[in-house]
Amino acid sequence: VTISDLGEFGLIANFAARLPSDERTLVGIGDDAAVLAMPDGRVVASVDLLVEGRHFRRDWSGPGEIGGKAAAQNLADLAAMGADPTALLVGLAVPGDESAAWAQDLVSGVARECSAAGATVAGGDLTSADTVMIAITALGTLAGRAPVTRAGARPGDVLAVTGVLGHSAAGLALLAAGLTEPASLIAAHRWPHPPYPAGPQAATLGATAMIDISDGLVADLGHVARASGVQIDIDTSRLPRPQVLTEAASVLTGAGISGGPPGPLEWVLTGGEDHALAATFPPGTALPPAWTVAGLVGSGRGILVDGRVFAGRGGWGHFS
Amino acid sequence: VTISDLGEFGLIANFAARLPSDERTLVGIGDDAAVLAMPDGRVVASVDLLVEGRHFRRDWSGPGEIGGKAAAQNLADLAAMGADPTALLVGLAVPGDESAAWAQDLVSGVARECSAAGATVAGGDLTSADTVMIAITALGTLAGRAPVTRAGARPGDVLAVTGVLGHSAAGLALLAAGLTEPASLIAAHRWPHPPYPAGPQAATLGATAMIDISDGLVADLGHVARASGVQIDIDTSRLPRPQVLTEAASVLTGAGISGGPPGPLEWVLTGGEDHALAATFPPGTALPPAWTVAGLVGSGRGILVDGRVFAGRGGWGHFS
Repeated sequence: VTISDLGEFGLIANFAARLPSDERTLVGIGDDAAVLAMPDGRVVASVDLLVEGRHFRRDWSGPGEIGGKAAAQNLADLAAMGADPTALLVGLAVPGDESAAWAQDLVSGVARECSAAGATVAGGDLTSADTVMIAITALGTLAGRAPVTRAGARPGDVLAVTGVLGHSAAGLALLAAGLTEPASLIAAHRWPHPPYPAGPQAATLGATAMIDISDGLVADLGHVARASGVQIDIDTSRLPRPQVLTEAASVLTGAGISGGPPGPLEWVLTGGEDHALAATFPPGTALPPAWTVAGLVGSGRGILVDGRVFAGRGGWGHFS
Repeated sequence: VTISDLGEFGLIANFAARLPSDERTLVGIGDDAAVLAMPDGRVVASVDLLVEGRHFRRDWSGPGEIGGKAAAQNLADLAAMGADPTALLVGLAVPGDESAAWAQDLVSGVARECSAAGATVAGGDLTSADTVMIAITALGTLAGRAPVTRAGARPGDVLAVTGVLGHSAAGLALLAAGLTEPASLIAAHRWPHPPYPAGPQAATLGATAMIDISDGLVADLGHVARASGVQIDIDTSRLPRPQVLTEAASVLTGAGISGGPPGPLEWVLTGGEDHALAATFPPGTALPPAWTVAGLVGSGRGILVDGRVFAGRGGWGHFS
């Protein structure tokens, strides 16, 4: 059964039956627009586009993984503001001759990640296109907290991170080399699991700035440094560098990848798409165990790594 | 100067300088997510995807028109709920070798339509793709009003419409035939102007159901009839059928369009993309002059035209 067979409205009806909803959704799927409760009088909103061949490959990821990852990267943007996710709107452009089951699996992946984050799916749009494109809008609430922007870091603050770093990049390198182990890294590339509750937690702890690591730690902290007018010095000795990344580097070297693979440290510093959170906190803030102090904010400009200008690649640029 | 030359962040900085913003935007472009004031404790939200070659043709519409139309169709969804627009999020996928000026003109068109509707642009996403795709998210407020869904029409209600019907479809037929007159219809196809204030007005007047006409009057009223469990009988003698549509039909006949063009009435009944509003009101509601009574709600099912089952095409389906 193809998408064209079912048609736009048939497919949407199928989707609606399998999507999470709850009392926060005052008007849900099937009307001109959704209406959501935003009891604190503000809404936090973000949109991300994912394009087949650029953000995902259908031969490397199944539809559920593509949907789950699309949801995760957008929900992580809410967490990075200190917000709790409320609902997603899911825009999907897909060829009409694709199977309806494929599209339903993608939407099920979105729904599963929403449930993990405590969000619903409140609406969307479905259209035909030659390549798959996903546009996810995430809507969330600050529940009375002040938003944590990129612009509030101050000299003397400490940098802390939570979530995994470099796993997705290592998994991508393994996939590109046609390898299948370590499987946990490939899974991390296909479907990241951002530390959603840590975002509101950081806001409550008084975080001065926060960002999710979508393009790479150095690149994304560069945005914070620029917006805040500060320098951030990353202390690599404190960054988590799990054994599995060393294993991945060995496997890639053993497979004879030309020029040698990036090492674990480069993955940790420049790998994107894990959607870890990096935040700055006033000195002396008592941080819960999930947060790892990994640097200091100073009064200069830009990013240092262990006190020196970083010579490696900065991260991912969409038009580079 | 191409988009790749400027890069994602350079282009976004260029956009941000020319986008409307105001005090409703608590955190705007340049952070992980936007934060918008929603003083009545609810948000109305809708997303639409537009795909090059399906929803627009770059040889038929300039970038400003493409952006303006994308914004209009999404802002109209808010109006159809009875909401005032607050802000848009603009997702844009575009080839890296496209000129930066082209993308800026598109975003300027979005901004111009936002200003016309009283909305700002609060954020977005930019990525590369082989074809242009636009994902617009519209966020609005009901300002204390109840939302007007598709599901509240009751037997005995009157059907009324506001805005133009059939102009975009006639303009499309002229473009497809390589014609340039009547120019107002071609302009209406390229950049529709929905009657935004009429949406909140209808809600205040007690509208029982409302929809914007994106796929065609018969098709869209079909959604209302289905959701409300009623029958709607359209009285074509009361529908606006301006002289310019008759002119367009004559021009097309004169150009020898094979099989003959649809007549003005078929454009009015089945033409989409003008984003007129159709609403049902309790009997006896005193309607302002901009609203035209054009039918009655009955206790059956589906749509009648002048008391008979409509034999023409129903409207536009994205996978048909």
